Amino acid sequence: MSEAFRFEVLREDKTARTGVITTPRGKIRTPAFMPVGTAATVKAIHPEAVKALGADIVLANTYHLMLRPGPERIAALGGLHKFMNWPWPVLTDSGGFQVMSLAKLRKLDENGVTFQSHIDGALYRLTPERAMEIQDLLDSDIRMQLDECVRLPCPEEEVRRATRLSLAWAERSKHAFVVRAGRALFGIVQGGADKTLRSESAKALADIGFDGYALGGLAVGEPQDVTLAMIECVLPFLPSQKPRYLMGAGTPNDLLESVRRGIDVFDCVLPTRAGRHGLAYTRTGRLNLRNARHADDPAPIDPLSTCAAARNYSRAYLHHLVKAGEILGMMLLTEINLSYYQELMEEMRRAVAARQFDDFCAGAKAAWRTGEASGKPAA
Amino acid sequence: MSEAFRFEVLREDKTARTGVITTPRGKIRTPAFMPVGTAATVKAIHPEAVKALGADIVLANTYHLMLRPGPERIAALGGLHKFMNWPWPVLTDSGGFQVMSLAKLRKLDENGVTFQSHIDGALYRLTPERAMEIQDLLDSDIRMQLDECVRLPCPEEEVRRATRLSLAWAERSKHAFVVRAGRALFGIVQGGADKTLRSESAKALADIGFDGYALGGLAVGEPQDVTLAMIECVLPFLPSQKPRYLMGAGTPNDLLESVRRGIDVFDCVLPTRAGRHGLAYTRTGRLNLRNARHADDPAPIDPLSTCAAARNYSRAYLHHLVKAGEILGMMLLTEINLSYYQELMEEMRRAVAARQFDDFCAGAKAAWRTGEASGKPAA
Repeated sequence: MSEAFRFEVLREDKTARTGVITTPRGKIRTPAFMPVGTAATVKAIHPEAVKALGADIVLANTYHLMLRPGPERIAALGGLHKFMNWPWPVLTDSGGFQVMSLAKLRKLDENGVTFQSHIDGALYRLTPERAMEIQDLLDSDIRMQLDECVRLPCPEEEVRRATRLSLAWAERSKHAFVVRAGRALFGIVQGGADKTLRSESAKALADIGFDGYALGGLAVGEPQDVTLAMIECVLPFLPSQKPRYLMGAGTPNDLLESVRRGIDVFDCVLPTRAGRHGLAYTRTGRLNLRNARHADDPAPIDPLSTCAAARNYSRAYLHHLVKAGEILGMMLLTEINLSYYQELMEEMRRAVAARQFDDFCAGAKAAWRTGEASGKPAA
Repeated sequence: MSEAFRFEVLREDKTARTGVITTPRGKIRTPAFMPVGTAATVKAIHPEAVKALGADIVLANTYHLMLRPGPERIAALGGLHKFMNWPWPVLTDSGGFQVMSLAKLRKLDENGVTFQSHIDGALYRLTPERAMEIQDLLDSDIRMQLDECVRLPCPEEEVRRATRLSLAWAERSKHAFVVRAGRALFGIVQGGADKTLRSESAKALADIGFDGYALGGLAVGEPQDVTLAMIECVLPFLPSQKPRYLMGAGTPNDLLESVRRGIDVFDCVLPTRAGRHGLAYTRTGRLNLRNARHADDPAPIDPLSTCAAARNYSRAYLHHLVKAGEILGMMLLTEINLSYYQELMEEMRRAVAARQFDDFCAGAKAAWRTGEASGKPAA
């Protein structure tokens, strides 16, 4: 769709794969995890630290930015990258998911959705065309079609209607997409937990033709086997030479199992949100730093981590910061979690390249169990 | 009082002076500003960033640390410096001021004070001896005697009683101080806004003999001329070869006027607390980033600052972060403010060394006015 945006699969290991997405603002090594920068900031961390921890791309939310500070304002200030001091690639979603989950008094019609801002109650209108216009004002590198997300579980008739509406909006989004060198548009497969609807959605999107394909409406609380079944069901219908993006996922285990099935790109608030609530994701499993058993523990989170925050502060200190509600605790745990997520992606990329992905997964999962049980580093 | 702690005045310009305090954990260039690390963290900033911005020493609060996580726990974990990952000098206060300002159901007697924790209502007892013991458990480099602070304005009889009690506690603090190589004990001059009481307090403390002398019970909302009058009144009675510390001050203007009168050391929550509330202190005056006039301003806080946060983010972006309650806004403004405070201290040290302090003050004050008026950098 545009010359300078391209995706190259470098190596496959069964259905898992590793590759590179090239954009004018930088390369994205896949499988890739995008930290979430909702309101033009990955919460509680400097942008240069996000990059240094291994992120090639971040996600920003169209819904939040259209409400505050407004896309026209960001455009006048030189675009989103300059605004947030992040010169590397950015993916923007279309706002569809947040309109479902955050907005008040949502009113949907064939042409779009009218909703009240959750901030001040002001009325806004989002159409496929306006979603494209906003993302063009933000000048994001990867842009998403407007879709309608349903809450799962959901009656079949309702899922069918939303899936068809999302397909109609996919067509309109592609038509409205402002073609610029290096900017990409991804379609979003919907269909709830229904394999037939998902397959139809994937086929229809592939016929329209996008720079990449996302699975939407998943990672919203449904059991993991449902998510994985949907991935397995739709992937045969998506062009293999295009990136595949599982929106909103997930736990480290979700990432492993999804990469195993062929997903290339992820975003999730989990590592950052969990970090702000005292949870650490580590090589040896998840730790709740709020737990009193850490109060006297001089051990760091992970003495072998590449992340200074994981090496230089004791669990006792992190426990203290979390209990005291100190911002530094949120900052350090955000770094620790993003670092672990990026280390996991890097290890997955290497494992696929070495065609040892299954072995790698087994080892990673075994290490998580040692930590969950003991709370001590496996080393 | 201990061999490896010493203070050297390098140069004087009228009553202003610049020097170096030497401690085993590092040198402190004076005049020095100590960022406040209340609960063993300077809020919303990494310790290595505090150092990189120019701080040689931070303050930590005995009151907060005795309640949580507890000094015995910190000692068992290897002391405060290791706990907070700050290997450089730390000054601890004695808890007296916070008992007055924060604790519930305070009950004072000749031997000490019993109070309820503001966190969980638990009862605690602080005596001059316990304050020394706690600070020894923390292993701070500079320790403060326990004192009683009164709220100003205050009836003369009450100030007199509190001043005498503080002097009695000064004696007991010195007696209880665990003499260790390189650790120092400072006495605290009290006396409210009463010159006679302040002078008597200073003389009596000098007779007891301390490694340094603080002015306490000031910078609590009284007019600046009262603070400055108290400095002028007590300094002749304090040994000139010992450091002089004005506790709790202040604004950039307070620092200038106090250094001019001979103060060597400061601490204040203002730059960090103001930063968390959207206020920036800059070469060109104070800015309220919450103000809508910044919403579309692409200019950084100060393009000439040595602080990356002051150069690399627009006022529009900082305004957005502050309005959205984003932690990154607090982080960046904390850095910007601490950077400005440390730049100001460095410039004051140079100005005294060059014996151009009055000229420097006039220039700094003129620059503040340009910014307060226009909101634009003076440059």
